[in-house]
Amino acid sequence: METLKEKLPYYLATASEEEIFEHSYKNKLPVLLKGPTGTGKSRFVEYMAAKLGKELITVSCHEETSALDLLGRFLVKGAETVWLDGPLTKAVRSGAFIYLDEIAEARPDVIVAIHSLTDHRRELYLDRHDEVIPAGDGFMLVASYNPGYQRGWKELKPSTRQRFVSYSFDYPRPELEAEILVGETGIEKNIAKKLVQLANKMRNLHELGISEAASTRLLVDAAKLMQTGLNARTACSVAIAEPLSDDREVVEALNDIIDLMF
Amino acid sequence: METLKEKLPYYLATASEEEIFEHSYKNKLPVLLKGPTGTGKSRFVEYMAAKLGKELITVSCHEETSALDLLGRFLVKGAETVWLDGPLTKAVRSGAFIYLDEIAEARPDVIVAIHSLTDHRRELYLDRHDEVIPAGDGFMLVASYNPGYQRGWKELKPSTRQRFVSYSFDYPRPELEAEILVGETGIEKNIAKKLVQLANKMRNLHELGISEAASTRLLVDAAKLMQTGLNARTACSVAIAEPLSDDREVVEALNDIIDLMF
Amino acid sequence: METLKEKLPYYLATASEEEIFEHSYKNKLPVLLKGPTGTGKSRFVEYMAAKLGKELITVSCHEETSALDLLGRFLVKGAETVWLDGPLTKAVRSGAFIYLDEIAEARPDVIVAIHSLTDHRRELYLDRHDEVIPAGDGFMLVASYNPGYQRGWKELKPSTRQRFVSYSFDYPRPELEAEILVGETGIEKNIAKKLVQLANKMRNLHELGISEAASTRLLVDAAKLMQTGLNARTACSVAIAEPLSDDREVVEALNDIIDLMF
Amino acid sequence: METLKEKLPYYLATASEEEIFEHSYKNKLPVLLKGPTGTGKSRFVEYMAAKLGKELITVSCHEETSALDLLGRFLVKGAETVWLDGPLTKAVRSGAFIYLDEIAEARPDVIVAIHSLTDHRRELYLDRHDEVIPAGDGFMLVASYNPGYQRGWKELKPSTRQRFVSYSFDYPRPELEAEILVGETGIEKNIAKKLVQLANKMRNLHELGISEAASTRLLVDAAKLMQTGLNARTACSVAIAEPLSDDREVVEALNDIIDLMF
Amino acid sequence: METLKEKLPYYLATASEEEIFEHSYKNKLPVLLKGPTGTGKSRFVEYMAAKLGKELITVSCHEETSALDLLGRFLVKGAETVWLDGPLTKAVRSGAFIYLDEIAEARPDVIVAIHSLTDHRRELYLDRHDEVIPAGDGFMLVASYNPGYQRGWKELKPSTRQRFVSYSFDYPRPELEAEILVGETGIEKNIAKKLVQLANKMRNLHELGISEAASTRLLVDAAKLMQTGLNARTACSVAIAEPLSDDREVVEALNDIIDLMF
Amino acid sequence: METLKEKLPYYLATASEEEIFEHSYKNKLPVLLKGPTGTGKSRFVEYMAAKLGKELITVSCHEETSALDLLGRFLVKGAETVWLDGPLTKAVRSGAFIYLDEIAEARPDVIVAIHSLTDHRRELYLDRHDEVIPAGDGFMLVASYNPGYQRGWKELKPSTRQRFVSYSFDYPRPELEAEILVGETGIEKNIAKKLVQLANKMRNLHELGISEAASTRLLVDAAKLMQTGLNARTACSVAIAEPLSDDREVVEALNDIIDLMF
Repeated sequence: METLKEKLPYYLATASEEEIFEHSYKNKLPVLLKGPTGTGKSRFVEYMAAKLGKELITVSCHEETSALDLLGRFLVKGAETVWLDGPLTKAVRSGAFIYLDEIAEARPDVIVAIHSLTDHRRELYLDRHDEVIPAGDGFMLVASYNPGYQRGWKELKPSTRQRFVSYSFDYPRPELEAEILVGETGIEKNIAKKLVQLANKMRNLHELGISEAASTRLLVDAAKLMQTGLNARTACSVAIAEPLSDDREVVEALNDIIDLMF
Repeated sequence: METLKEKLPYYLATASEEEIFEHSYKNKLPVLLKGPTGTGKSRFVEYMAAKLGKELITVSCHEETSALDLLGRFLVKGAETVWLDGPLTKAVRSGAFIYLDEIAEARPDVIVAIHSLTDHRRELYLDRHDEVIPAGDGFMLVASYNPGYQRGWKELKPSTRQRFVSYSFDYPRPELEAEILVGETGIEKNIAKKLVQLANKMRNLHELGISEAASTRLLVDAAKLMQTGLNARTACSVAIAEPLSDDREVVEALNDIIDLMF
Repeated sequence: METLKEKLPYYLATASEEEIFEHSYKNKLPVLLKGPTGTGKSRFVEYMAAKLGKELITVSCHEETSALDLLGRFLVKGAETVWLDGPLTKAVRSGAFIYLDEIAEARPDVIVAIHSLTDHRRELYLDRHDEVIPAGDGFMLVASYNPGYQRGWKELKPSTRQRFVSYSFDYPRPELEAEILVGETGIEKNIAKKLVQLANKMRNLHELGISEAASTRLLVDAAKLMQTGLNARTACSVAIAEPLSDDREVVEALNDIIDLMF
Repeated sequence: METLKEKLPYYLATASEEEIFEHSYKNKLPVLLKGPTGTGKSRFVEYMAAKLGKELITVSCHEETSALDLLGRFLVKGAETVWLDGPLTKAVRSGAFIYLDEIAEARPDVIVAIHSLTDHRRELYLDRHDEVIPAGDGFMLVASYNPGYQRGWKELKPSTRQRFVSYSFDYPRPELEAEILVGETGIEKNIAKKLVQLANKMRNLHELGISEAASTRLLVDAAKLMQTGLNARTACSVAIAEPLSDDREVVEALNDIIDLMF
Repeated sequence: METLKEKLPYYLATASEEEIFEHSYKNKLPVLLKGPTGTGKSRFVEYMAAKLGKELITVSCHEETSALDLLGRFLVKGAETVWLDGPLTKAVRSGAFIYLDEIAEARPDVIVAIHSLTDHRRELYLDRHDEVIPAGDGFMLVASYNPGYQRGWKELKPSTRQRFVSYSFDYPRPELEAEILVGETGIEKNIAKKLVQLANKMRNLHELGISEAASTRLLVDAAKLMQTGLNARTACSVAIAEPLSDDREVVEALNDIIDLMF
Repeated sequence: METLKEKLPYYLATASEEEIFEHSYKNKLPVLLKGPTGTGKSRFVEYMAAKLGKELITVSCHEETSALDLLGRFLVKGAETVWLDGPLTKAVRSGAFIYLDEIAEARPDVIVAIHSLTDHRRELYLDRHDEVIPAGDGFMLVASYNPGYQRGWKELKPSTRQRFVSYSFDYPRPELEAEILVGETGIEKNIAKKLVQLANKMRNLHELGISEAASTRLLVDAAKLMQTGLNARTACSVAIAEPLSDDREVVEALNDIIDLMF
């Protein structure tokens, strides 16, 4: 187990997410990870795939991701026409994990393409290739979704949402988050603690109208810049305050908090 | 008959839907199934097709489903051009059942393509292939439609709606729903009853502003997770509460109800 | 004449529509049939074509019907490129009747394509095929239009409307409608009368906000279901009440009226 | 001249439009004809072209008419690619008249394509064919525009409008309009007068909210139907009242006026 | 110089625009000409190009003008694919003047395509042809823009506007405008003065809601029509009043002013 | 170092931006430069690339820039199909700097395409070419963004913004800005100071509603025009006042300020 752990991506569980994931996997139920930016959703999927010894295929969805992008397409190679499996088809055939990051961004045919994979049928219908592929035994569909900044028309339809076991991610507890900072950047424990304290102060400043709070990723960036010698205030300003807002007054307010801490 | 029943998908009729379907079939009238997510519309069609000994072809419609997707298209294979029947054409030719799931989502040419199949003509006009196909004797067109979350411009036009015999699905009666849970997951009867009680409590909480109520599918998922050993509260939270809302306060309210039950 | 009548589709004239159609035909004037769903516009065109011994070509227009769909297109067949006449071109060449059902739905180039056919020129300009086709002697253009649910931007332009002799269809008088029911389904006269009474009651319930009233087609469907043995209340509910509305309270109100009648 | 006149299309000038057109032609100025449907704009252009002994090429513009449609395009014919002049290019080369009917409907590149033809340059730039064509000596560009039903975003830009000499068409004076009816349909003079009286009554009923008044074309259609024996009231109802409105009350009001006249 | 002047297009400077243009040319700065329709922006560019002995390439931009249209494209000629320089590329290579008329109408990639030509780089990046072309020595980019009728979303972005030296055109002073009329049409001086007086009266009638005032071009057209013998009132009505408005009352008001003058 | 400095583009640091950039480079963190037009963002990137001895590839993004434009595409060359690397792929392969100017303007697939380059993976996924390219050692991604005139729907998503170390540019301090003017145009120091004074006066006139303040670039243009002999007032009017507004009253107000200074 140790040996395995060493190969695992760095991940610290914050609640019962591992258990939930494993039971969903056993029951062949798809999983939807909800939560704000930078709370470790993608990292968690990588971790679980490694822990369960599964291959992971990731697709970052955007407004123009279509079913074709996931299923595959015919390519003309010289005189021949060759079918090229897309990432979803590869995962279904080989029984791998597929991770559809920010699934609500994708075009509607993507949602429909996964219908038959997310109910009792568990098969993929390749219309253009005229083929029905039963999902390989260990196949699992995982998707992520950030409810925070979805606009009304980009919400997942209820009929889609009720196809997934859902789990909400949030920022890690302070001790855990500090531990993550040390683990990822090698920064001193007490500086890590100060960064986490700083982040939590900012996360509670709801009156500033920041659309999404400081993620752990921002703290990691600040810690890295400090590690190579940039002074703490500048590092926190450019790695934490500036990415959170374009409003000069808000940034100044955040810089003031930074100056109080460092 | 018993032998046949054993091959049937698991389905428990909640009213006279079987009788209505069979009379529509006898009169060669198309049927529209209305109702919210997860109330068994698709399962019912599968059940009726099996009961009547018919092949069933299902198409999940979405905003970009066009008539071409249903009718067929020419494919270039090497030097030749080959016509490939789409799912609707296959059903018409072979006298099978076609099920257009969420038909209101499809593009307008889909609606028009089925016109001649839903009136006294009962034939399909394959414009591009220059062919008119009379519907095979047992051909039947079934469609579903979820009035709950249709936006104004995605409603079916009255002239389309008046082409179908329509039937509304709703959540099953408590005893029946519990029976379904036991039948699908093998869970103990009294736990099944508790899950149904839980669902009905949530379904009546209109003040929470949940856009679509908990479907039977969610209860089945929760039951499955409990069957492999996940504790009841966690199972209900990730399989029922989280899929229903992204609002933390709403999810907490739902979790409180769960905690009262289990 | 009797022999001919037997071949005619079942149609009962409700006013002077036959006379108007025949005079328009003699004067080579195009005709526009206006009116709600299911009042027999399409059936009337089929009837007149049969009565006048003309071939009828029907095109159901939708939001994406373009002039290309009507005029024709080049198809690549092996090494050759072949021109394929569309339905309008076929009708013009052979002097047949063309029926453009729901013409207001079509794309604007369709309207323009028929300009030269609806004035003193009576010829079709096939731009891409570089050909001008004079309309065959018996050519006639008939279109339909449902003013009831047209949205503002889908109205026919006045300059288009003034190109047609127009006739409005409405629901038939009670005695006539009952006669139609008997003629189409073989149901007993007094049940037919009750169905018509029911329909007229519903048609006058303007306070229910039903966007389009019950058509004769719905009554025919209900009668058919009753003929194969479905009980009257259920038949009327699924064939008449449910297709008219998705609002449960409206459907219940309609079911109450049904229960009063049967 | 008589001989020539006999070849002219039937046209009766209502004001100084012939003189204005001829002076514009002499000064090589483009002309824009404004006015409602059916007031003879197109007929006037045909008449002037015939009178001046010029060939006339007509293009009915619609929302999807693009510069390519007017200028020409490359066509693949077997192994060769052949350039095919569009209607505007043909007119420019041969010094003919081009008539762009309802120019405001066309796509913006159409407007720009005629820029260099409507100022001191008088040449056409064929971008794709890499050719500049000076307008043949007698080339003249005429366009029409119906200000009545243009929506805001479909107005011609001021910079385009100031490129044309403009003339407004309106309905002809009563005596003249009656003369036109007799000339086109052979109807008796006193019936023609009654039809014109009827039209003018309707044209002044601004309170009915009819978006465009009865054109001469409608009177011609009614007269034709009466000539083959349809009774006057029915003929006026289907040829005049019904094409003007879909509002039953408005149509009834118009029918009442008809009944007062005939 | 005289000889040169004779070849120049007719142009009378109204302020220091020539000096500003020449200094911008010396400093290799692009120039943006702002102002309403028909105030001589295009004519001025032609004049300056001729005066400075430069070739001028003009592109009239519209809503669908894309970078491809300006840069060039690959054309298939028989078996070969040939690159064809677009007008901007030609101007850059040969060091000519390029005039982008109504640049704000063009698609966004046009604006970006000229970025590298309007700053210290002065080179054109031909992405698809994989080539970077330094601007020929005398290359100059001139654009025009009519702030009067730009809709909000068609404004030039500040970052684009700050790339140009900008100059505003307005209608010429009365004496100058009369001189232009005489120079262009040969009309008598006192009639020219009257036309200018007329135009200025109309230009000050802000209460009529005319979206863009009478340009010099309109006066030139009226003068031309009068020169070939059309009476003054009719000429002014069809060349000045009618092009300015479709509102009959506004046109009548303008005609009244004309009647007062002539 | 001197030798190196001489090759550097002219750039004067206004704060700690060089240090921040170098630490980000060391930590392989992407950088986002925020700030208004003409404050030297692009010039700064050129300067840093030269200082660090790196190749710089710049892409000006606009509303239609797609991932294909950045990643590359297949081109047909005669009988062969050749893959052509796009600018981002070139930079990743060769370990160069890529600068995505105005990244918020680009299409959403561009943002997603850089995901894997802006986190711990640092690799580029070439879907169509079926290749994963690890970023060359010195690869760095820099983007710019102008928060001033971004419309709501063109803001960068929080999840994207939190991927970058961010730094805000503003107008330089007066002494520095004057120094830049002298350095770029050779103008006299006291005139440079006056120009800067003028700009700062205008920048503080918030009541004029100017959407973006005068950039240093405008001052440079004015200085250049003055250097070749255009009088100061005219130079400042056409190079500074006119580019800032189309409102005649605003331009007059700015001209008044200019007249006060020169």
